[in-house]
Amino acid sequence: MPQESTLLHQINLPADLRKLDKSQLRNVCNEVREFLVDSVSKTGGHLGAGLGAVELTVALHYAFNTPKDKLVWDTGHQAYPHKILTGRKDRLHTIRQLGGISGFLKREESEYDVFGAGHANTAISAALGVAAARDFEKEDYKVVAIVGDGSLTGGMAYEGLNNAGLLKKDIIVILNDNKMVSLSASNPRLWSLHDYFSVAFTSPSYNKFRTNMWEMTGKLDAFGDRIRTAASKFEKGLKAIVTPGMMFEAIGFRYFGPFNGHNVLKLVEIFNHVKEFKGPILIHVTTEKGKGYAPAEADLSKLHGVSPFDKVTGISPKSEAPPAYTNIFGNAMVEICKENPKVVGITAAMPDGTGLNILQKNYPEKFFDVGIAEQHAVTFAAGMSTEGYIPVVAIYSTFLQRAFDQIVHDVSLQNLHVVFVMDRGGLVGADGPTHHGTLDLSYLRCVPGMMIMAPKDENELRDMLYTAVQERKSPVAIRYPRGNSLGLPKKEKMEALEIGTSQTLRTGNDVAVIAVGTLVNNALKAAELLEKEGILAEVVNARFVKPIDKKMLSAVAGRFQRIVTIEENSIVGGFGSGVLEAYAELGLSNLTIKLIGLPDGFIDHGTPAELHKITKLDAEGLADTIKKFCNQHPAAQPIENRKAQ
Amino acid sequence: MPQESTLLHQINLPADLRKLDKSQLRNVCNEVREFLVDSVSKTGGHLGAGLGAVELTVALHYAFNTPKDKLVWDTGHQAYPHKILTGRKDRLHTIRQLGGISGFLKREESEYDVFGAGHANTAISAALGVAAARDFEKEDYKVVAIVGDGSLTGGMAYEGLNNAGLLKKDIIVILNDNKMVSLSASNPRLWSLHDYFSVAFTSPSYNKFRTNMWEMTGKLDAFGDRIRTAASKFEKGLKAIVTPGMMFEAIGFRYFGPFNGHNVLKLVEIFNHVKEFKGPILIHVTTEKGKGYAPAEADLSKLHGVSPFDKVTGISPKSEAPPAYTNIFGNAMVEICKENPKVVGITAAMPDGTGLNILQKNYPEKFFDVGIAEQHAVTFAAGMSTEGYIPVVAIYSTFLQRAFDQIVHDVSLQNLHVVFVMDRGGLVGADGPTHHGTLDLSYLRCVPGMMIMAPKDENELRDMLYTAVQERKSPVAIRYPRGNSLGLPKKEKMEALEIGTSQTLRTGNDVAVIAVGTLVNNALKAAELLEKEGILAEVVNARFVKPIDKKMLSAVAGRFQRIVTIEENSIVGGFGSGVLEAYAELGLSNLTIKLIGLPDGFIDHGTPAELHKITKLDAEGLADTIKKFCNQHPAAQPIENRKAQ
Repeated sequence: MPQESTLLHQINLPADLRKLDKSQLRNVCNEVREFLVDSVSKTGGHLGAGLGAVELTVALHYAFNTPKDKLVWDTGHQAYPHKILTGRKDRLHTIRQLGGISGFLKREESEYDVFGAGHANTAISAALGVAAARDFEKEDYKVVAIVGDGSLTGGMAYEGLNNAGLLKKDIIVILNDNKMVSLSASNPRLWSLHDYFSVAFTSPSYNKFRTNMWEMTGKLDAFGDRIRTAASKFEKGLKAIVTPGMMFEAIGFRYFGPFNGHNVLKLVEIFNHVKEFKGPILIHVTTEKGKGYAPAEADLSKLHGVSPFDKVTGISPKSEAPPAYTNIFGNAMVEICKENPKVVGITAAMPDGTGLNILQKNYPEKFFDVGIAEQHAVTFAAGMSTEGYIPVVAIYSTFLQRAFDQIVHDVSLQNLHVVFVMDRGGLVGADGPTHHGTLDLSYLRCVPGMMIMAPKDENELRDMLYTAVQERKSPVAIRYPRGNSLGLPKKEKMEALEIGTSQTLRTGNDVAVIAVGTLVNNALKAAELLEKEGILAEVVNARFVKPIDKKMLSAVAGRFQRIVTIEENSIVGGFGSGVLEAYAELGLSNLTIKLIGLPDGFIDHGTPAELHKITKLDAEGLADTIKKFCNQHPAAQPIENRKAQ
Repeated sequence: MPQESTLLHQINLPADLRKLDKSQLRNVCNEVREFLVDSVSKTGGHLGAGLGAVELTVALHYAFNTPKDKLVWDTGHQAYPHKILTGRKDRLHTIRQLGGISGFLKREESEYDVFGAGHANTAISAALGVAAARDFEKEDYKVVAIVGDGSLTGGMAYEGLNNAGLLKKDIIVILNDNKMVSLSASNPRLWSLHDYFSVAFTSPSYNKFRTNMWEMTGKLDAFGDRIRTAASKFEKGLKAIVTPGMMFEAIGFRYFGPFNGHNVLKLVEIFNHVKEFKGPILIHVTTEKGKGYAPAEADLSKLHGVSPFDKVTGISPKSEAPPAYTNIFGNAMVEICKENPKVVGITAAMPDGTGLNILQKNYPEKFFDVGIAEQHAVTFAAGMSTEGYIPVVAIYSTFLQRAFDQIVHDVSLQNLHVVFVMDRGGLVGADGPTHHGTLDLSYLRCVPGMMIMAPKDENELRDMLYTAVQERKSPVAIRYPRGNSLGLPKKEKMEALEIGTSQTLRTGNDVAVIAVGTLVNNALKAAELLEKEGILAEVVNARFVKPIDKKMLSAVAGRFQRIVTIEENSIVGGFGSGVLEAYAELGLSNLTIKLIGLPDGFIDHGTPAELHKITKLDAEGLADTIKKFCNQHPAAQPIENRKAQ
């Protein structure tokens, strides 16, 4: 909690902030920053983006009349200061924890969260929709979209900008340019305009000119046109002036900037000045991610999303946990690329998050980071595949939703061999519903020719990746959860699995449990619990969601009347549905099948363990559900007459 | 067939074209154009785009060494001249017909079709992938992507351009600018840069300057930099010259143009000149859609995609068919918007194709055409929905795949009431696999909170639309096929259906047939055929795919052991899977369920009737399948003991 003597203590809502004198805003920023570091050091969470947006956030809530005026934040990593100023500082210590506030924007959490976010690029489109509704209602509030430069590597942002330029709605887009598109350690800049901008920035004459331009806006009403008129006098044939905003002006925006995004007073002045203008406006501010906190400034990628850390050193306590699946994948990619010159890795601005940073380090030429551009990533991969390359596209389960059409139209329809590796399949934990990967088995299962695998452990992940890159004429997907592997001894030699085969891990004779992915381990533990209750469960590791192991399913149907499927995916259209479809196709009836998976809804944030407990996907929950299922459906034959294999 | 005396007769492959003297190319163009009009007047198909691309196509195949050099066409409407010149002119009369060539690019059809297309915006990404593979192989062929200006309203094109600018691959992008983004009759220009370009184009000094620039490229090697150096001398602070290509230069492309895209000799000269340059290059050519054929020039939207027509007048014979579902929807929207001031319509550059042109005509202020930008369309709608508006987003089933993530993350997760209307659900006919809408029930069914309806006829479509716009806090989807309605007397007053209820249309006691959408009519006809064979089928019109009518399913399970589901969607994850899931949830076993739908694969083009026959979704096919199913699974009880309701 902020101390009573502080300014922050007096600020519960933005209206309180607006009561302060402008001269106090710098102190407010310092206090917000300190509060933020203090809080996140204890809870973990996203830090760098918020630190960079402190002055911007304070200035926005000071200059605009929120919540009447509406701020639409893109993605949401940078929203912590916004949460602090909008009635949630007392709950910031609960962030990303079960029952606590979300790490992202969330409409149901606050009227100040105008539009939820978690995925990138959506703010301009959403803000334009709000502005269109406002104009129908003949209301006069302001709509402000705040987007990072990273979002301008994603195509949807251009769709929004283009449409805003045409509709000519009153809308303000703030480009928060922190030159941090990619979170790679080596951090290649992924937005091609950066190079262009930086040339312009370094020119003293440009900067002088920019200052003049800004001062003119105070004097001239039809500012844009006048500048152009003046400029055209310089030379016929030269129609305008090159500024970083040229491009935005071209699509119908009035451009202002770039401004120092850490000068809170200047920002307030700009916002107050610009907010009376009509039409689409773009304000370009440059900020530094991690600003004002030395450890974050020193290592931007490390303090993007963090575990709790020591406030002085910025260092999180070392974890003794086994390596994450992310690292298992990254290292396996290096081994595979060493052997197979046709394999390459593609990420959409998540080299560290996907583990492809390990490939980048070892084989930089085999590594492609295309920006926050999942659609392009997939079709770019499809193009490479037509020439005999085997691209491994590593995108989180939830973000791959962005490229669903490209998977169908560009890859599957053309029988191209592209490998999709989905980290964060299932419940991701603290990031919550925007990031849970709970639909991939459903949306990929309907894609013709798509092979889908889910490993139960790290050695199986390695084998599955190896299987996926074997020559074939169709796409392959592998999904696995966020988090640590089991810590098994490494099986050095990767082996190709026989396509569409499962593995029976435990025999039983009361109920067949067919599980897929890492929940296989929970299923095995559940079987132990059930055994204590006298229920003998057979446990099968399905391995393949598609093609499904029909031979196994037939055999199971011959021995069991009661069948349970387990998956960490929505029960709508997922693995369990595939089992039902297969039995329908096989024409087998007289089976009672229970689908266990995630409900047809959204799960809030919490630790994976908590969420597994809530959704009853932990061993105890599974055992309980299976036991009830067995009780509700007594076996047609007495157990002693049924024989385990 | 071209006459023997013609040049076209001598051209089977591009190599033949390249044997001709440059001076003959104009005649080749004339012949291609004549052949194209003649052929499409008989077969129907896409005409306007191809006519506009004749010179471009001839020049490309003349200047580039295809198929070694690779042309990647975007979308594919404009590819007919390409097909004529690449070994397929003798089959052009089979275009879009069963067993004939495709109306779009198709890899399996020709080695000259480097990358399949049908959806927009993919060419730059695919071409960049090809270029990346080429560079790994140290080969030296050229890769050329040809994109329309319409594609530059879609975000994916920017993702590709951005990444190409950064990777600095040798790639040539040809912007075929025909100022025809939207096919609306009133044709608003949807690409905001058009306005910007047109200012530049009209300036005589600009044009003079451009000519100079072009001539300089012949003399200067480091052309781009030198121009900039020269320009910077004019005035410090003015860093470059405004050309339409500013924007492309900014993201790392060398820009050339705009050029007259109907001057084939000039185009050849440009291509020959430019193809030796390194790095990403953009050539901007302006063309006229429908060029050289008066009826097409006079009405651009009418001759975009056409039925067979009279070559002299350009007029297709009037059809006596009942109104298309497209028109039923458009008119219903007008009626609804008249009553409900909160409802608006949104299209992604398809006002005519979706029927929203009717809304546009009646309530222009309620109509939004956002460009070929499905992602933005959905999130823009979500933004409006947060302010209490009810956007009806009308996008073809297959194109809505582009916005899957926005449907999940921006709409469903936030419980927003956005209505999705999917025309072209199911098999679309002549457009083939890129356009079939065969996955929507699968990819939408897993979206939490999504209500999904499919009408059996036009009156039900009206009622479903009316149901969809009733106040609620969740998304709704309606899907119906391409083609004509049944021609029923119009039920004037639209009524809201009770959510999640089905309708039993015919009683029987041998097998229960639960169908959804317009296949309900085929199911009824199949039931008549089956009755002649002594099989009495009960037929249920499911109406709701989600929420599914569990009460009906329970009742059916109480009376029937054999159940058949019918849908015009993939059987993977679709309506039938929903039925299986519901029975699993209800704990009902001892049912034998047959899922009838589209196979887990892609269906080629043909007429809808032909495709229904092939997929056995016509009445005869359904009857046959159901009969076999009944024979394979004799009812447990004799029929006389089972009682129809």
